[in-house]
Amino acid sequence: MKIIGALALAAMAATVSLPASAQFAKAEDAIKYRQGALTVLGSHFGRVGAMANGKAAFDAKSAQESAEIVAFMAKLPWAAFAAGTEGGKAKPEIWKEQAKFQDLAKKSEEATAKLAEASKSGNLDQIKAAFGPAANSCKSCHDAFRNR
Amino acid sequence: MKIIGALALAAMAATVSLPASAQFAKAEDAIKYRQGALTVLGSHFGRVGAMANGKAAFDAKSAQESAEIVAFMAKLPWAAFAAGTEGGKAKPEIWKEQAKFQDLAKKSEEATAKLAEASKSGNLDQIKAAFGPAANSCKSCHDAFRNR
Repeated sequence: MKIIGALALAAMAATVSLPASAQFAKAEDAIKYRQGALTVLGSHFGRVGAMANGKAAFDAKSAQESAEIVAFMAKLPWAAFAAGTEGGKAKPEIWKEQAKFQDLAKKSEEATAKLAEASKSGNLDQIKAAFGPAANSCKSCHDAFRNR
Repeated sequence: MKIIGALALAAMAATVSLPASAQFAKAEDAIKYRQGALTVLGSHFGRVGAMANGKAAFDAKSAQESAEIVAFMAKLPWAAFAAGTEGGKAKPEIWKEQAKFQDLAKKSEEATAKLAEASKSGNLDQIKAAFGPAANSCKSCHDAFRNR
């Protein structure tokens, strides 16, 4: 399996013109990177969610700060799911259904960008309205592509 | 030890007015968060470094993209070293020498902000000039506060 992974990675490096952002020396590095990015994303998303769901006091500045971090982080993980980086909690389906995966990733970027935009209003109702679709965009991708 | 950590955390939550960005339910969450943020930071810093050191072809757009991610990520980890979150690769000195730690963290933020600024020029020499101080700012903190 490791040999196949290495060959896939070598083939990718040799034949595909990827942006530098998609390049990792080892599959393990890509896995650590995407898990790290999603951990940071999830932490801040949870903080916004706690406020949106009334489980934490609403603090407009903190909500905006976290929502902007979420939107920034939501752009990062996808390039780290390149061919040859199978592993971690990622289901093999990611590499078999690339179009669907990329579509869901893009929807997450869009939904979290809207959440960040809403957070600038300082209005909890606007944040709540944008939080639901963002949470659903995470869930759709996790349901399809993440092992529990 | 776990009880002491929990008590420290409870005391912190009760008595200190921290920004929400510094709050984690468990020490383990803070450790995963800061390691995740530093992994993403390190990955992009390595890409800029490879170009600055002539080990990768210079791509101005990619260098700027990575340098901006580095500068963004450099703001995140420090709030996740709050009292009661000892562990991971972090040396206990972090919590004994908070002034020094916070000073080095701030210097990293500043040096990476300058690197991001330099990367906007699209000029490799300017990037090289800003990369050295940024790398040193990482090293100073790692030497003092990170276990190998």
